[in-house]
Amino acid sequence: MSKPVITLTTDFGQVDGYVGTMKGIILGICPEATIVDIVHEIRPHSVREAAYVLSTAALYFPPDTVHMVVVDPGVGGARRPIVVQTQQFCYVAPDNGVLTMVLGRDPARLAIHLTESRFCLPQISTTFHGRDIFAPAAAYLAKGTDPREMGCPLPLSDLVTLAIRPPETQADASWRGEILHVDRFGNLITNLEIVPSDLPFSVTVGEERITGLERTFADVTTGSLVAYVGSSGYLEIAIREGSAAVQLNLGVGDPVLVTGPCLNCQDTAHRSISRLAEGQA
Amino acid sequence: MSKPVITLTTDFGQVDGYVGTMKGIILGICPEATIVDIVHEIRPHSVREAAYVLSTAALYFPPDTVHMVVVDPGVGGARRPIVVQTQQFCYVAPDNGVLTMVLGRDPARLAIHLTESRFCLPQISTTFHGRDIFAPAAAYLAKGTDPREMGCPLPLSDLVTLAIRPPETQADASWRGEILHVDRFGNLITNLEIVPSDLPFSVTVGEERITGLERTFADVTTGSLVAYVGSSGYLEIAIREGSAAVQLNLGVGDPVLVTGPCLNCQDTAHRSISRLAEGQA
Amino acid sequence: MSKPVITLTTDFGQVDGYVGTMKGIILGICPEATIVDIVHEIRPHSVREAAYVLSTAALYFPPDTVHMVVVDPGVGGARRPIVVQTQQFCYVAPDNGVLTMVLGRDPARLAIHLTESRFCLPQISTTFHGRDIFAPAAAYLAKGTDPREMGCPLPLSDLVTLAIRPPETQADASWRGEILHVDRFGNLITNLEIVPSDLPFSVTVGEERITGLERTFADVTTGSLVAYVGSSGYLEIAIREGSAAVQLNLGVGDPVLVTGPCLNCQDTAHRSISRLAEGQA
Repeated sequence: MSKPVITLTTDFGQVDGYVGTMKGIILGICPEATIVDIVHEIRPHSVREAAYVLSTAALYFPPDTVHMVVVDPGVGGARRPIVVQTQQFCYVAPDNGVLTMVLGRDPARLAIHLTESRFCLPQISTTFHGRDIFAPAAAYLAKGTDPREMGCPLPLSDLVTLAIRPPETQADASWRGEILHVDRFGNLITNLEIVPSDLPFSVTVGEERITGLERTFADVTTGSLVAYVGSSGYLEIAIREGSAAVQLNLGVGDPVLVTGPCLNCQDTAHRSISRLAEGQA
Repeated sequence: MSKPVITLTTDFGQVDGYVGTMKGIILGICPEATIVDIVHEIRPHSVREAAYVLSTAALYFPPDTVHMVVVDPGVGGARRPIVVQTQQFCYVAPDNGVLTMVLGRDPARLAIHLTESRFCLPQISTTFHGRDIFAPAAAYLAKGTDPREMGCPLPLSDLVTLAIRPPETQADASWRGEILHVDRFGNLITNLEIVPSDLPFSVTVGEERITGLERTFADVTTGSLVAYVGSSGYLEIAIREGSAAVQLNLGVGDPVLVTGPCLNCQDTAHRSISRLAEGQA
Repeated sequence: MSKPVITLTTDFGQVDGYVGTMKGIILGICPEATIVDIVHEIRPHSVREAAYVLSTAALYFPPDTVHMVVVDPGVGGARRPIVVQTQQFCYVAPDNGVLTMVLGRDPARLAIHLTESRFCLPQISTTFHGRDIFAPAAAYLAKGTDPREMGCPLPLSDLVTLAIRPPETQADASWRGEILHVDRFGNLITNLEIVPSDLPFSVTVGEERITGLERTFADVTTGSLVAYVGSSGYLEIAIREGSAAVQLNLGVGDPVLVTGPCLNCQDTAHRSISRLAEGQA
């Protein structure tokens, strides 16, 4: 087995000892682990934001990486701590839908409800399962423990999923999507998967209409508004060397209207309509 | 000797090269070290905040971890750079009281004033001892150097300690503590160690009075105010999925009044009174 | 070969999965790498700030460290991805001048335009070369790949450099420099390299005049304004346990006037004048 990798995705921020504490626990159980922070600045309790960010990064890790996610507004309540195994990875998380987007790209093969107390800390608090349950579980998985030893199998259909609204087709054959995420640069990442083509293309966001899909923001002048397919495959709207979020006053959930070929991979109905649109246009 | 671990707790923030520089120094001396950030966002010069955060995380690390702390408003002045050894860990820090809380939980066995220049960088600046003194010292300790080789022993009673005010009993037999820390979620962490029991219990903070101690915030509805024993053993006050600090406009140092059994482990006088109260109530 | 070290300097911030993604790529190619974050909070697109911060930290790393820099406003445009080799280190960056300051201290020996696609990801996006080009290149270099295999040599004189304005001498024999960086503490770091001496010395910034060069801020009382030579060799202006940037309302680019001996190591004309001034004063 190669050097184990554990990633962390949390809303714990960086002013407390919470993340450091979890790393201490992990290194005590699996000293050879390489621990990688994906992000700790998820907005507090935003399962949806964590689901998105995790889905952009997780699949770029080496096989057998253990991805641990602790965005857990229901900690201490009834929600289950789970392990989900896919062809390449293990995920450790609360069963609150935070894995929905990544499992859309990397399908679940096995889900386990973490119940075996010997893979937890001896004392389990009611408010910090990251320390008491998820960190030890991730460390044991990284050491090679079979998830089946760690609890009871769950039917995959039993996992909590987020209701992620796919883009909708409009009466005028345009698409209506929404802003999924605002990144560090103020770029607006939408939930629309666009097929670059020679067909006419336009986007409407807020008060602005952008005509044409560019290859990248470097194709426009500094300060210009631009639409392009971003590095995760989604339509993005940016202002070159500026913040589209600030300048257009837009944020997560705001609507985005697109005229042109759109392909959202997890929604076969839309995909076929989109292909039809492509063929017809 | 197992793979050495070095943790870092500083107020250096994340916009400069200070933390990276220290890691470069450490890896040059001890390439096999695993370096873990506990926190770098301590408020500038806040020895007290660093003392608290360190005390919540340090004891969860594997034995022989070297905990390095650089919150050092007196750098370049008369304060001593020290190593403190306990049963399990080594601490490297300025002698300004930043270890007070952690040593309350993990008692000092040996203290050394770092004076041996061969364990420092060749040139010692007056403003960045993290780079020139503490990082090399931590790296040599992680390599297994005996702290006694690194300088002169200090009597343990000689170490600077923070005056941490324990909770005070009031005329009406209630307890008066204070807010020790506001965490990322806006939860208010107090200096009161509470014994969950069936006895009547109430907390007064700011304008609010909370009756009853819950097991966790998941026991109340979203937006409700709740008191519970937090993951470090102290009474915490939170608003479920909200920020108690923002909504109650409270912060570090604000008073907290409690009626009910309280047990502060480091204050034997209070403890016995508290036990008495428990027995009598 | 010792355990390879790769450092990261970016403007990617900490709310997205960008940095984690790059680390995943690196660990897939070079699992034994120790990855160190220098800084990710460079102001978006500020090549100049990244150039400064990198130059303060890079040289403290062990030999053979690979320093990867991704502050890349021109991503997807014509700017070249490059590797620069010096006596001790390899740098991987866009050819936009971000290496100017560090190469002033650690001269380039070889520059390569990264063109060999077998050292990149199979699909290269137009907006995230950190993931698709720079991270794989850094990982292959850390594994020991010869940079000459990775692309075409470039004449060193061909590299893009930032126009960094050296301090100017004034008619009255004083020096005019500027603020290069504001650090986490609000300390003002200037571009003036000062020789501490017994000669009269004064600094004027904003509305304030400071007489005398102190050894460090610990030499003045809390709240006092102080000038001293900082840990990177430049004149710094600080308020002890306060923020000079906030209290004087000054920032990057603001002028600093100095009377007294000044020595800027990369500017031989200034240096000799300065030495003359030193001898004459």
